[in-house]
Amino acid sequence: MGCHVDSIAEKLAEKQKEISIGEFFERNKHILGFDSLTKSLVTAVKEGVDNSLDACEEANILPEIVVELEEVDDREYRISVEDNGPGIVKRKISDVFAKLLYGSRFHDVRQSRGQQGIGVSAVVMYGQLSTGRTTVIRSKVKEKDYAVEMEITMDTKKNKADIISEEVVLWDEKEHGTRFETTIKGLLRSGDHSVFEYLKNTAIVNPHARIVFNCDGDTTVFKRATDQLPPPTLSVKPHIEGIELGTFVKMAKECDRRRKVSSFLVNGFSRISYRTAREICEAAGVDEKKKPEELSLAECKKLLKATKKVKIMAPKTDCLSPIRSMLIKKGLKNVLKGYRPEFYAPPTTREPCVYSGNPFQVEVGLVYGGDLPSDGAVKVLRFANRVPLLYKKSGCATTTAIKNIDWRIYGLDQRGGRGMPSGPAIILIHVASTRVPFTSEAKDAIADIPEVVDEIERGLRECARHMRTHLNKEKRRKKVSRKFMIVKDILPMIAEKSAVIVGKDPPSLDKVMTKIMGVVYVESSYQWNNGHCHVSIDVNNYTPRKRKLKVYLEKPYPDNVAMDTMPEPRTDGEYLEWHLETLKPSGLQQINFKFDNGLEKEDMDGLEIYIEGIKGTSLIGAEPLPDDWDVEMAEIEKE
Amino acid sequence: MGCHVDSIAEKLAEKQKEISIGEFFERNKHILGFDSLTKSLVTAVKEGVDNSLDACEEANILPEIVVELEEVDDREYRISVEDNGPGIVKRKISDVFAKLLYGSRFHDVRQSRGQQGIGVSAVVMYGQLSTGRTTVIRSKVKEKDYAVEMEITMDTKKNKADIISEEVVLWDEKEHGTRFETTIKGLLRSGDHSVFEYLKNTAIVNPHARIVFNCDGDTTVFKRATDQLPPPTLSVKPHIEGIELGTFVKMAKECDRRRKVSSFLVNGFSRISYRTAREICEAAGVDEKKKPEELSLAECKKLLKATKKVKIMAPKTDCLSPIRSMLIKKGLKNVLKGYRPEFYAPPTTREPCVYSGNPFQVEVGLVYGGDLPSDGAVKVLRFANRVPLLYKKSGCATTTAIKNIDWRIYGLDQRGGRGMPSGPAIILIHVASTRVPFTSEAKDAIADIPEVVDEIERGLRECARHMRTHLNKEKRRKKVSRKFMIVKDILPMIAEKSAVIVGKDPPSLDKVMTKIMGVVYVESSYQWNNGHCHVSIDVNNYTPRKRKLKVYLEKPYPDNVAMDTMPEPRTDGEYLEWHLETLKPSGLQQINFKFDNGLEKEDMDGLEIYIEGIKGTSLIGAEPLPDDWDVEMAEIEKE
Repeated sequence: MGCHVDSIAEKLAEKQKEISIGEFFERNKHILGFDSLTKSLVTAVKEGVDNSLDACEEANILPEIVVELEEVDDREYRISVEDNGPGIVKRKISDVFAKLLYGSRFHDVRQSRGQQGIGVSAVVMYGQLSTGRTTVIRSKVKEKDYAVEMEITMDTKKNKADIISEEVVLWDEKEHGTRFETTIKGLLRSGDHSVFEYLKNTAIVNPHARIVFNCDGDTTVFKRATDQLPPPTLSVKPHIEGIELGTFVKMAKECDRRRKVSSFLVNGFSRISYRTAREICEAAGVDEKKKPEELSLAECKKLLKATKKVKIMAPKTDCLSPIRSMLIKKGLKNVLKGYRPEFYAPPTTREPCVYSGNPFQVEVGLVYGGDLPSDGAVKVLRFANRVPLLYKKSGCATTTAIKNIDWRIYGLDQRGGRGMPSGPAIILIHVASTRVPFTSEAKDAIADIPEVVDEIERGLRECARHMRTHLNKEKRRKKVSRKFMIVKDILPMIAEKSAVIVGKDPPSLDKVMTKIMGVVYVESSYQWNNGHCHVSIDVNNYTPRKRKLKVYLEKPYPDNVAMDTMPEPRTDGEYLEWHLETLKPSGLQQINFKFDNGLEKEDMDGLEIYIEGIKGTSLIGAEPLPDDWDVEMAEIEKE
Repeated sequence: MGCHVDSIAEKLAEKQKEISIGEFFERNKHILGFDSLTKSLVTAVKEGVDNSLDACEEANILPEIVVELEEVDDREYRISVEDNGPGIVKRKISDVFAKLLYGSRFHDVRQSRGQQGIGVSAVVMYGQLSTGRTTVIRSKVKEKDYAVEMEITMDTKKNKADIISEEVVLWDEKEHGTRFETTIKGLLRSGDHSVFEYLKNTAIVNPHARIVFNCDGDTTVFKRATDQLPPPTLSVKPHIEGIELGTFVKMAKECDRRRKVSSFLVNGFSRISYRTAREICEAAGVDEKKKPEELSLAECKKLLKATKKVKIMAPKTDCLSPIRSMLIKKGLKNVLKGYRPEFYAPPTTREPCVYSGNPFQVEVGLVYGGDLPSDGAVKVLRFANRVPLLYKKSGCATTTAIKNIDWRIYGLDQRGGRGMPSGPAIILIHVASTRVPFTSEAKDAIADIPEVVDEIERGLRECARHMRTHLNKEKRRKKVSRKFMIVKDILPMIAEKSAVIVGKDPPSLDKVMTKIMGVVYVESSYQWNNGHCHVSIDVNNYTPRKRKLKVYLEKPYPDNVAMDTMPEPRTDGEYLEWHLETLKPSGLQQINFKFDNGLEKEDMDGLEIYIEGIKGTSLIGAEPLPDDWDVEMAEIEKE
């Protein structure tokens, strides 16, 4: 055996060579999201739309996106995505669309959909791989009155475009924009994992976009719900928390030679002031005046360790773009399909956190009960940087976090307190980050980074606690309601009969009833008429004391208008607010009004009435004003 | 808003640039398997050991691998992997260890552990990223009497090594070999996801390797169980099944200009003869004499379509290295820890199949019952190309396949017939392929490629059917046993009492009993004494006819020796085989012998006794000879 060895090392050496990044991804197309025919279509559309949305937002343009899918041969689809973005200058078109690992956002620390510079080039690559066809790109920038149209393929060995043709065309309908068209092998399916589902969910969390979907002749328009672009995300410096030692050393070595350690810390990282920097140096026992490039490995390590002892502010939020409570609610309502859940947990937007220096933020929403099916596993909606995630649920940090929780203590079924809970609930999770840690380049699942899983868990627990409170309250409400009905119906009968027997007038029962009940009882109802939603709220004071109450109702959408309000509300902004006349024991105050057109039944689900002026334990049919509202309300009043 | 647009396209263009592959992976270290501190250690060891095993096998050397782990600072581990492989020639060392996407096996169509040329360079990268430390490589090739030692770091921007020092050292203990040592951030854990578990499982499915593990001072030696290297895997040409159209077009364009379409098909792909090639051309309506580079896209498509109509042989197996039934059993036994399962399904090694032109082969093993815990989910052991997969279970094709099956019909619990089954069972799955479709570069889960999931499902169903048959038989055996006990114990008592009453001698009951029972009843027992396993087998003929029976016992391992056998077996190879004397009704034949030392109790689990000469329905306590054995046995006899 030994006699073969000498030649072997040389033989192996001859075979060792560089692997082209293009060929690598061509062979591993499944890690780019092209692992099944159905998924390939979704991936292709997703990469195109993500790119378009990013480009529009970067240029401060309200996105108008047209997606077309047409089966041109058995299992071959022509797919095109057209936007009104800023366009791509001619010299960059071929690289943007046919060079893997080429992009503008890789070195930026801020939230965007695309980051790696792989996505749309991968679509071009998969198109030619699966159908042998070329890709046509048309792009027009504002300063030109013509568009450039290019037909390209990708040379995977060289990882660059082969330009087949290039011409100037008129594109008068468009002031600026980009369109790309390619043909890929695929299979069109409906359901949870479909192109339609992806676009629908995208529209929900990107209400500033208008998306038109032409699919084999059928057109669906996802209308724009707001003209307000999400606030632009800003580039920030990395946060020092969780930065790898090697990265820190490299930054120190590459830093401006005139700097000292303290100014290196201030200028290299976000949220570090000179004072904080000095504290870090002191805690580390490192001279703050030292030149960063002279720091030893041991000193760098000490500095990083010291950052854990010094309080450093959490990352700024302006590099992130959470979807916020209204969109969480909309996202949830969208999948309800007529099930009317009895409870909407107040959506949670957690404070930004950091993993490996990357800021991220978790949002969670939860609905429970009503007609939601109670036998299967809980349904989960996943989003990352405003992009819906449809695949690889089981390998996703969101699922890990859900499985880590013992849901039985919050009121859901769960075998052995582990694994997916089951019951009538839907959970929505959104992870926003300057760098979402996807498990692969297909970007369909979030990796189990401990910090991220942990934050998702915290968000889930917040919502879950609300659910538990609701379920407990619901139990109590039912009990009190039963008592209330008995007292209200039977007591007067007893009084009347007794009065007849003793030959006296029936006594006033108000005092007795209020003593027995001891609650403020609120009844609300919604009725539809000519497209208007008529709302009526009865507030009964069944306590033995006079009550001065304030009533708050959150509007379904901030721009809804309340009409014919009786009495007039004090405030009519995001909330309607009434300050009721003092209610005597057994007193009743009615509130009536109608909302303008355009609301759907689902919109009224989960609307809460809040009452101020009575303890929560003595309130039935409404919620006490949450603690954190007091401030907000006070501020509104000041204005 | 519009006025900003003209500058935007240019502004964006300035930011668009190439992303370095090194920086890409540095930022995405989690897709390389460095997403948690515990996993990072496993990944680092795994990449080193995989490389060593591949190198040794390629050079036809029995692997001797020493892995060392030592905590040198809080959560910093020095890790080294040393092998007796062929060594790496000096000029290649820095590229092999510090250049991502550099390797020898990417373009080879055959089974190996490493394929992408990423693994070990990723460890070097993660080492310097997480601890700021360098990597030291020492390598010696047979033809030199000294080794080269190099200290390197990786320049991630340029994706190449920075060589810090390089020297010639003596390494007299080693004739040839490679050692690499680096320091990474990590956390040492025990349990299912540990370095120890990875090495143990690696040793099981690579019994030709000797692996020594030094961990913080403790040494474990995983001994070599065989001196036989697995048959070398050969490079093959791609299989035409599932080849992407784009790949086919490219191959045709790049093919030798002197070739015709027919010879292009024969020479470009495996398993296509000239006759098959002509059939394909005919079915496609393409002239077989045409030059391949002149084929139009439409013609290429027709040719690929035609391959589905023409019978093309499945891929050859010599590019694959399945682990085979014995190692499947060993792998299963290894995790049993004293639970004695009542049933071992015969391990399944499926025929090779193809996805996207890549041959692959699935193997499945299953044990059931005994003391295995019956309340939790079924335990799953996963392997790919002889490498144990410890992470990302839920995102793996193996799990998808398991979840796709309704296990209730096979006798396991499963909520609603979907999801993970639960019950007292352990499943082992091995996927061997010239290109395992891993979900990410971390290689810890197999992607849900429909063809692969499908094959795993088929393998699982095969084992599951055996389990069902076993469970049904077990039910029947219990019933027959009960009947047998009654007949055997009560009938003689009745006969005796009746005889006393009528004043006659008790009659012979043999005939009556054999008529009632109608079975051959086999009882076997194992006893341990002085390290020997004493085996005793009783064969009772409770049928009304004379029986000429053959008894077969599979040895735990082929090299076990049976001693003091009584009677002498006819054959003593992989099986022990006895041809019994003709047994009269009610006749009993005993077989006694002992196995040599070295067996453990677990080794006797799942050993089956097979009987020839009686129908399976009339056989209790043993199995009828499987149909596919007849041939095998006949062949052994002929020899």
